[in-house]
Amino acid sequence: MDALAAVTDRVRALLPERSVITDRARLRTYECDGLAHHRVVPGLVVLPDTVEQIAAIVAECARHRVPFVARGSGTGLSGGALPHAEGVLIVTSRLRRILAVRPEDERVVVEPGVINLDVTRAAAPYGYHYAPDPSSRQICSIGGNVAENSGGAHCLKYGFTAGHVMAVDLVTPDGGQVTLGTEAPDAPGYDLLGTVIGAEGTLGVVTAVTVRLTRDPEAVTTLLAAFTGTDDAGAATSAILAAGIVPAAIEMMDALAIEAAEAATACGYPAGAGAVLIVELDGPAADVHAELAVVTRLCERSGAFVLRVAADDTERELIWKGRRSGFAAVGRISPDYIVQDGVIPRTALPEVLRAIAELSADTGVRVANVFHAGDGNLHPLVLFDSAVPGQEDRAEEVSGAILDLCVAHGGSITGEHGVGSDKARYLPRMFTDADLDTMQLVRCAFDPDGIANPGKIFPTPRLCGEIPRKHRAADGPAFPAGAEIF
Amino acid sequence: MDALAAVTDRVRALLPERSVITDRARLRTYECDGLAHHRVVPGLVVLPDTVEQIAAIVAECARHRVPFVARGSGTGLSGGALPHAEGVLIVTSRLRRILAVRPEDERVVVEPGVINLDVTRAAAPYGYHYAPDPSSRQICSIGGNVAENSGGAHCLKYGFTAGHVMAVDLVTPDGGQVTLGTEAPDAPGYDLLGTVIGAEGTLGVVTAVTVRLTRDPEAVTTLLAAFTGTDDAGAATSAILAAGIVPAAIEMMDALAIEAAEAATACGYPAGAGAVLIVELDGPAADVHAELAVVTRLCERSGAFVLRVAADDTERELIWKGRRSGFAAVGRISPDYIVQDGVIPRTALPEVLRAIAELSADTGVRVANVFHAGDGNLHPLVLFDSAVPGQEDRAEEVSGAILDLCVAHGGSITGEHGVGSDKARYLPRMFTDADLDTMQLVRCAFDPDGIANPGKIFPTPRLCGEIPRKHRAADGPAFPAGAEIF
Repeated sequence: MDALAAVTDRVRALLPERSVITDRARLRTYECDGLAHHRVVPGLVVLPDTVEQIAAIVAECARHRVPFVARGSGTGLSGGALPHAEGVLIVTSRLRRILAVRPEDERVVVEPGVINLDVTRAAAPYGYHYAPDPSSRQICSIGGNVAENSGGAHCLKYGFTAGHVMAVDLVTPDGGQVTLGTEAPDAPGYDLLGTVIGAEGTLGVVTAVTVRLTRDPEAVTTLLAAFTGTDDAGAATSAILAAGIVPAAIEMMDALAIEAAEAATACGYPAGAGAVLIVELDGPAADVHAELAVVTRLCERSGAFVLRVAADDTERELIWKGRRSGFAAVGRISPDYIVQDGVIPRTALPEVLRAIAELSADTGVRVANVFHAGDGNLHPLVLFDSAVPGQEDRAEEVSGAILDLCVAHGGSITGEHGVGSDKARYLPRMFTDADLDTMQLVRCAFDPDGIANPGKIFPTPRLCGEIPRKHRAADGPAFPAGAEIF
Repeated sequence: MDALAAVTDRVRALLPERSVITDRARLRTYECDGLAHHRVVPGLVVLPDTVEQIAAIVAECARHRVPFVARGSGTGLSGGALPHAEGVLIVTSRLRRILAVRPEDERVVVEPGVINLDVTRAAAPYGYHYAPDPSSRQICSIGGNVAENSGGAHCLKYGFTAGHVMAVDLVTPDGGQVTLGTEAPDAPGYDLLGTVIGAEGTLGVVTAVTVRLTRDPEAVTTLLAAFTGTDDAGAATSAILAAGIVPAAIEMMDALAIEAAEAATACGYPAGAGAVLIVELDGPAADVHAELAVVTRLCERSGAFVLRVAADDTERELIWKGRRSGFAAVGRISPDYIVQDGVIPRTALPEVLRAIAELSADTGVRVANVFHAGDGNLHPLVLFDSAVPGQEDRAEEVSGAILDLCVAHGGSITGEHGVGSDKARYLPRMFTDADLDTMQLVRCAFDPDGIANPGKIFPTPRLCGEIPRKHRAADGPAFPAGAEIF
């Protein structure tokens, strides 16, 4: 009996029938996450109801050296939850209890399958919300947010998931259970919490998450500014930040993205705009009022030809609807598209956008730009039609070339969508061998057999014994060959 | 020739004579850090001038399996820089260059020996400062701050060192060099930066630090409030925070601490006060003005009988002088003292302070309390006279009993001074075996020979091969006995 079959038998014995999927047609349902062109049918899918079940499943995987992959809502855009053909996909969506709401110390404790927006809903009666707000917040899970260190429009001011998670419970790849992080301001011991956040499930399965709540601001104002092009909108962004104002969000959309959003949501963005900025200010009412005056003036100076302040929540929601629907809306103007995710220093914004436009003109591949302008986090949408031979390949090339542009301008290959299965090959562009080997040594400390989401993040997954400690001084072997170093 | 002698020979060959100390009398100068009752004369002291020298020294230590300990200014209060008798003490105080000041993106890059306050001095012309402000900021080094994840009075609002360090260069315990952290909002790969911050030099030697600057606030107001006792001052603290105000700092001193501060600095705290609160508000002028009115009212309601707002920087400085001199000032009223450091939930403040007072009355050991009231970080100063037989032991007992109180009330054994050599034995009170073993596995990933600051943090330092993966499922050995797992 092969190893996966052995694990399957044990899991069937441990879990109720409704929690175990082995039927090929149903397994296929889980073949991809939000990165739909990477597909692998998992060997086994389990939908545990409890932490103890997760620990038992992982322990069985460890015993038989069978890979496992955790999956939340499956909305990730880098293939972090891409299954393993010979492995177990552990779906956490049934662990959806809110375990504690403690507004008095600004904390909520949730199971990993809890939906992002449900944390805010639980906190709302007390005047709080959960700040990280991916565009997918209505469906994405907190466990997935932790795995990918998710961002969102308001992370410009409030920071990414890592800044809002105070502690997690983790099932380690040997089936053990640990708690990482505490509520103390500076806890003793190693802070391994930050390492696990954004590790994309390669260090274990998160089974409980304590998050920090953010007090609702006294006032919120949302401004829509229309420009003739992205150069002017970029200049306005720089001017606002240089004035010392940190808006809750500054989002930019270019002409093609506006066209798509209009087609999908009738959000009423100004006609003829080559770019729009959405600037949201929040805080004490007096500050918001004063900042709005400055932002308005700076947008005008940068060439804004329409400035519209949302009069109420309905208008604000409409402005955001266009932006939040951004990716899906592109489906209205193109049968297929790739969502790219890269970061550049804000100062490089005009130059990189021009280079993307040239790339698009040279290749005939259309690119729509929707992005978090405030922190230079680009989301170019590269459009193609998979029915036309060659288009997908060309789109992939353009998408890769955009990442090259980001790196060449001192940026990063991912802003908030993660590495997953999609970008592992790009990691050497940002890290030295010594940097990557140090990460792999930590991975091996947690997971010596490499069974936790293998093939993700690292460009050259190695057996743990193969990672060279090559950075050691060279004039004599510090260890006899074959010695145990662990 | 023994291993240390071999390393000494190599270091003499690599470094100039002025950088190598082997003379017993001069070695003794380095026998302790700020935790003066823990003393070990180091085997060798080196004062490198460059990163390359540090890497070479560590590589030699690795080759000969000789322990090394990094030391900045030696102001740490938990013995994190306590030397090793058979090891090398690497003093970083000559690496004191400010490598870059980049106000345009709010960054400063420094060598590890740079003094905390010098970062603020470098940033001041641009309207910025470095927020973490230990009371020792005039002499403590950034490298030491990173090792201990140092806090300070203003960390209530602005957070600890970990929140202000964006990247470090690290010489790993094999002599390799890596960079951890980036300036991207959500970098790919593992975030190992947070693990190294606060690891007290057990994962390597930090050789460069990129810090985030904080914009100087438009307005600052400092309020001194006198109460009859700590109960009232604690109630005022709770009321201020419950009102949704986050002051830059809320510091409390009890009667004995006030007496010491007055004796040392003539800071003019109100006569007859059983406790004082220092509340500092900063931010936009309009907010500070509005918040001051609320804070004043809440202090009055809680029983403040004197309220004094600093009229100018000189008065503000005088108020802070009393607080900052707090520890040293105690020398005026007691020949010896232990600085304890623990955390409790703010709500437990009155109860724990009463328990400390009872402990003091029962044992006859005087305890002065100076602390960061806003985040529940206590600094009880336990007074004794080492010339009186038995007093030191009794003081140690009282100091330990205070930590027990903290843990019993759901707090932590250290707020900001670290574990070091002082508190390793207390770690099991806060962590399970599985938690501690996970940390040790990470330590071993970086340092399989256990040469980087051994004996610190972990209560039972083990050879790396001895850490059980005991949390694995038990019904069958996953590894054959003696197998390599790394």
